[in-house]
Amino acid sequence: MEIASAILRRGLLFVLSSPSGAGKSTIARMLMATDDGLALSVSATTRPIRPGEVDGKDYYFVSDEKFEEMVANGEFLEWAHVFGHRYGTLKREVLKVIESGRDVLLDIDWQGTQQLKQVDPDIVRVFILPPSMAELERRLRARGTDSDEVIQRRMDRAAAEISHWAEYDYVLINNDAEKCRELVHNILKAERLKATRRVFLHDFVREMIGDR
Amino acid sequence: MEIASAILRRGLLFVLSSPSGAGKSTIARMLMATDDGLALSVSATTRPIRPGEVDGKDYYFVSDEKFEEMVANGEFLEWAHVFGHRYGTLKREVLKVIESGRDVLLDIDWQGTQQLKQVDPDIVRVFILPPSMAELERRLRARGTDSDEVIQRRMDRAAAEISHWAEYDYVLINNDAEKCRELVHNILKAERLKATRRVFLHDFVREMIGDR
Repeated sequence: MEIASAILRRGLLFVLSSPSGAGKSTIARMLMATDDGLALSVSATTRPIRPGEVDGKDYYFVSDEKFEEMVANGEFLEWAHVFGHRYGTLKREVLKVIESGRDVLLDIDWQGTQQLKQVDPDIVRVFILPPSMAELERRLRARGTDSDEVIQRRMDRAAAEISHWAEYDYVLINNDAEKCRELVHNILKAERLKATRRVFLHDFVREMIGDR
Repeated sequence: MEIASAILRRGLLFVLSSPSGAGKSTIARMLMATDDGLALSVSATTRPIRPGEVDGKDYYFVSDEKFEEMVANGEFLEWAHVFGHRYGTLKREVLKVIESGRDVLLDIDWQGTQQLKQVDPDIVRVFILPPSMAELERRLRARGTDSDEVIQRRMDRAAAEISHWAEYDYVLINNDAEKCRELVHNILKAERLKATRRVFLHDFVREMIGDR
């Protein structure tokens, strides 16, 4: 690890949660495109790889047995069951981003967020609400990939996810993706100015005021 | 008080501190000009009125005796001695702004900020650092109003003020007024999205998820 970057500032763990269909993935992608100081950590999952996905880039695709082993070895910061598969945030991947001097964007649900908060109380948690359940259903149906039954399960799951909004530090309603991205970016830029994270200022101020 | 605005959101007390000459007043003026949702509360002071100032607009100019009486009556949220005069933030003025549905910008020093934090732990505290003491001295001298001795006293006072930077929530270095204004505005906009302040979301979410 580069000592300088560790001394200069403390990297942020920036959590984005929302029900599926509220636009979180779009916002995450837009954020990454507009902020060089932010990177996703590559998670591990037991779900099958999809066409176009790359192992080690989109996810680390692992077997159930391998995932169990990684859990037992304490390799995860948090992990959760989602629709029959498991997803987990790897400690080493998060460290890799922090050590590169960037902040980490984590796209996880309320369960993962609660686990992460236990491990690191300093995380920043942002929740994105859809404008309405009707709009959420419209967005899920527009994907055209799910049966009515799956849509209903997703809607129930969305309601359960939404019920945890008040456990987050910041909450937004996503009426417009670009406006929402701008607000989330504001939060990120503001959090970087927190006194507790600007470790280098201790030296800066000592040098500045000297023995006055 | 309008019940609706009290229920919809909780107004922010937004504190801006810096040593004199670090550009705080300029930043405050620029912020007020770019954000309609922000207002200054009119403070009381015992210092003499200056040409061009308006009583009740720039300050409430009061006598020492009157100020004492107001302190005794508990009319202040905070007050402090600055260069032989007293300055205080009036409870009724802050309430007036909050009740109009706006956030309050408070231009106070570290002593006032500590007092205010005791009264309301929910305040947001921003500290603005000058880029260097040399630059601070240059700015103080550029005003052309103070003797060398007064400048030296101001510099000592500045160092004392700066030594309290770590008691603030956010800290910025003012290298450029417009950039600094933008960052302070980011902080304000982000703080407005704090879950604890978005009281209306409790009803919004209950309506939204219904009995799902």
